Amino acid sequence: MQQRQRRWNGWGWADETVPLPSSARAWLSERLGAGEPLPEAGEQSVRLPAARPLPELPATTLGDRTARLRHACGLAFPDVVVLRTGVPQAFPDAVCVPESTEQVVAVLRAAVEADVAVIVRGGGTSVVGGVTVNAGSRPTVVLSLERLRGLVALDRASLLAAFRSGTLGPDVEAALAPSRLRLGHEPQSFEFSSVGGWIATRSAGQRSTGVGKIDDLVAGLEIATPDGVWSLPPQPASAAGPELRRLVVGSEGRLGVITEATLRVRPLPECRDGAAVLVPGWSTGLEVCRALLQTGPVPEVVRVSDPDETSFGIALTEVPRVAAGVRDLILGMRRFHRGCIVLLEWAGAPQDVVLARQAAARIWQDAGGLALGRTPWRRWLAERFRHPYLRDVLLSAGWGVDTLETAAPWSALEALHGAVRHAMTAAAEAAAFRTAVLCHLSHAYRDGASLYFTWLWPLRRGDEIGQWRLLKDAASEAIVASGGTITHHHGVGTMHASYLEREVGTSGVAALAAAARALDPHGVLNPGVLLPPSLRPDGAGRGKP
Amino acid sequence: MQQRQRRWNGWGWADETVPLPSSARAWLSERLGAGEPLPEAGEQSVRLPAARPLPELPATTLGDRTARLRHACGLAFPDVVVLRTGVPQAFPDAVCVPESTEQVVAVLRAAVEADVAVIVRGGGTSVVGGVTVNAGSRPTVVLSLERLRGLVALDRASLLAAFRSGTLGPDVEAALAPSRLRLGHEPQSFEFSSVGGWIATRSAGQRSTGVGKIDDLVAGLEIATPDGVWSLPPQPASAAGPELRRLVVGSEGRLGVITEATLRVRPLPECRDGAAVLVPGWSTGLEVCRALLQTGPVPEVVRVSDPDETSFGIALTEVPRVAAGVRDLILGMRRFHRGCIVLLEWAGAPQDVVLARQAAARIWQDAGGLALGRTPWRRWLAERFRHPYLRDVLLSAGWGVDTLETAAPWSALEALHGAVRHAMTAAAEAAAFRTAVLCHLSHAYRDGASLYFTWLWPLRRGDEIGQWRLLKDAASEAIVASGGTITHHHGVGTMHASYLEREVGTSGVAALAAAARALDPHGVLNPGVLLPPSLRPDGAGRGKP
Repeated sequence: MQQRQRRWNGWGWADETVPLPSSARAWLSERLGAGEPLPEAGEQSVRLPAARPLPELPATTLGDRTARLRHACGLAFPDVVVLRTGVPQAFPDAVCVPESTEQVVAVLRAAVEADVAVIVRGGGTSVVGGVTVNAGSRPTVVLSLERLRGLVALDRASLLAAFRSGTLGPDVEAALAPSRLRLGHEPQSFEFSSVGGWIATRSAGQRSTGVGKIDDLVAGLEIATPDGVWSLPPQPASAAGPELRRLVVGSEGRLGVITEATLRVRPLPECRDGAAVLVPGWSTGLEVCRALLQTGPVPEVVRVSDPDETSFGIALTEVPRVAAGVRDLILGMRRFHRGCIVLLEWAGAPQDVVLARQAAARIWQDAGGLALGRTPWRRWLAERFRHPYLRDVLLSAGWGVDTLETAAPWSALEALHGAVRHAMTAAAEAAAFRTAVLCHLSHAYRDGASLYFTWLWPLRRGDEIGQWRLLKDAASEAIVASGGTITHHHGVGTMHASYLEREVGTSGVAALAAAARALDPHGVLNPGVLLPPSLRPDGAGRGKP
Repeated sequence: MQQRQRRWNGWGWADETVPLPSSARAWLSERLGAGEPLPEAGEQSVRLPAARPLPELPATTLGDRTARLRHACGLAFPDVVVLRTGVPQAFPDAVCVPESTEQVVAVLRAAVEADVAVIVRGGGTSVVGGVTVNAGSRPTVVLSLERLRGLVALDRASLLAAFRSGTLGPDVEAALAPSRLRLGHEPQSFEFSSVGGWIATRSAGQRSTGVGKIDDLVAGLEIATPDGVWSLPPQPASAAGPELRRLVVGSEGRLGVITEATLRVRPLPECRDGAAVLVPGWSTGLEVCRALLQTGPVPEVVRVSDPDETSFGIALTEVPRVAAGVRDLILGMRRFHRGCIVLLEWAGAPQDVVLARQAAARIWQDAGGLALGRTPWRRWLAERFRHPYLRDVLLSAGWGVDTLETAAPWSALEALHGAVRHAMTAAAEAAAFRTAVLCHLSHAYRDGASLYFTWLWPLRRGDEIGQWRLLKDAASEAIVASGGTITHHHGVGTMHASYLEREVGTSGVAALAAAARALDPHGVLNPGVLLPPSLRPDGAGRGKP
């Protein structure tokens, strides 16, 4: 059986794509005008420099062209632009694929010995530069955890399952399903991202409103450091100093290489149900979600699209003519002129799901919402992992697209939403192009929620990354100024590293850098990732303590 | 109005005590034999050395005898023994009571300047040596946060309330009640412990099964360091590097002084209900709790006493003769020979409480449990903050008592329970005295629970602390060897510091010590607390990184 191949210069499977409906094309043309399509170079046209000499590494090491190219970067917008146009600038000198924790430790020791930089890679789906090789003076190895796979141990009574860190999303669920269990962590990258990557980047899943972020799902960890194996066995709770598992969650490889994780799992739900509701506006949508989270029962999935995302979502959806007629009739109502789609899903025992749905219905009815039945929810379920393919389709059609996410307390969300939209629109306007900034709320909490922005613009050939940076910077500044976090679940990578200090303070960065220095004194792990460039763990350019 | 005074040499209010019923006295005499009562010296008999010279501190500073004595230590067993017998060995040279965050920073700067050790103190109820002044070569100031009190800000929409860190439990709830809100964090020290202390020690409350440990309740923090104010504003979630709020939670003053915290609050429940159930044995009790946690709805309070604690609990409770007759009849049933009391409480909307109670009843009935009505629950509610007074009463009666707590996954709990009991019993036996080791499960989670041990022994005059240490060490070794955490909610203090490395590894201690060094490079904050003595942040005796 031939293994399905991943696309070398874009998202997902090479044999999969999504169509761009004519209605979406019309929406984009009207809102943004036409842009210049981004050409696609062939994989063989990319020119790789000769690999620099490396010491013998104590694990399988691949030095071929394909391995070096396909492990050169992640899937951030700039990554994809340089891949597609065939001009990536930096490549690993080799790709190392250890098969055990002991091999990882040995590779790290060899790297320290020979002063080789090590880029730790799980599924390689980082959209923030977390696995992008940078041109540096040191030889660089990508340490890919793709062979550290599988379920290691299952403690059914405690609902704990230990996985090797390279295990991908579908394999996690497949390993648990025979025991009628699930993890339920389903980021949009689910098919391609790994347990270790989720933990290293503090990821969230589409069901994290119900099951919790990865932060909450980690009970135990095993980490390889140049000094040996660091084990933090599973515990439900403790007061033995700060929770060091939480120091590793989000550490993006700077404190060591996560090789195994014990995760909190749960029984497969007996039943699921979903709903889509049209509410009169964005504020109403936020209020409905807040009420759901604060009074409960909490749905497993909560999403509210703002008016622009609702509008683009409709343009993206091909429906039969009769359904479209009914839809347009509803949207024509004055009350739904700035209507927002709310998507909900419940999971659990049948009677609990019924009660939860009834409780939610009371809330959305009080808010003037109109239930749209289960079809939009079923469509979301079917399509939810396919959206990222749109980026490649849009690039070919002349439009750039990227996403970013933040989170803030409920009281700050509306202003934050407005500030980001305003900043990005103004930045584009000043550079004489247009942008569409769409947003949905997802991942809701009792005290706040995350906002996920999708932004589109017409491409100018040769300046794609410049346009992207302009918009990204404008959004990042607006987020930090409005009290939002610079990232809710994509991580810091290299792209947000310069914002970290404004979010966690000089003291926070100093504490984190000191911890990294203690565990990786030679600074071989993921240089440039997470910590601001001025604070390298090897002490060069080290700020005041 | 005269302020109510705290006892200078023991727990709680000076004017409060609890009786030791004759049935309890008989139980102890039978199980342990008689011990030698611990005498009580007068407060005025304690001899204090002259205070060492200090620099002028930029906040109100108290140098009087009473202040120095009453801030010399916490309320651990050894603290109370030396206080009661009038022989404490170390005292602060002064007590500093700042009134603002800025004053705290200024005091820390002055301390660094003059190389003065600073013991940070909230309510002073540490039972693990967290606020005990140690005889050291440096002058020592206790930095008491007792004047940093009150609600600073309330964000009703986001259910967030910011408190100054010296605010005590009752004042937290009193400030929230007019808004129909509560925090719900109710450790046994509730009346005397502070927001900052709860956070610094990773405390749990009696309702933490329902509302979460303090770890989960902290949304934002303000920390004073010698370098200035470190602010981590409230966020519902983030992926901007590791969660540094969680690095501060449990840091026991080593990373800075918590001056303010934004806490996640919730509406006051409309209704509460409780139940007490007798189940046939300890395993059954654990299984009932596990089922409650894993299938839900989760009660707000879950407690199961093991057979010995159930037996002593009955001896402690004076009930009318008829009730006692019925009780003895039930306990005489073969099925309840090793019976265990399960205590449950639910809070919320009336219909939710009813449903939750029904779901729980199905679980305990399936397990052969017998509902005992609401009286034991009401008694627990009325008495729950009074138990710590028993220690002083028992010391006067010739028996020592202390508590310790751990947590582990469900699959490990029974073995852990057995190992701790066996180790302590064997240690006492080897030293030719007897001990009674009682235990209850509290603070349950989906993946495990905490066990809280109460241990009693007959005192030998002059060797009280020796006996205590023997039992404590035996228990600590058994806990660490069985995979339990060395502390679930009391914290590390000085007493558990030597076990930290075995729990979090050399890498964990190295990372933590490095973070402490970064924020407190001169090591003035709480020397000897949390980190093993061999890893001082000032670098002396520093282990390998």
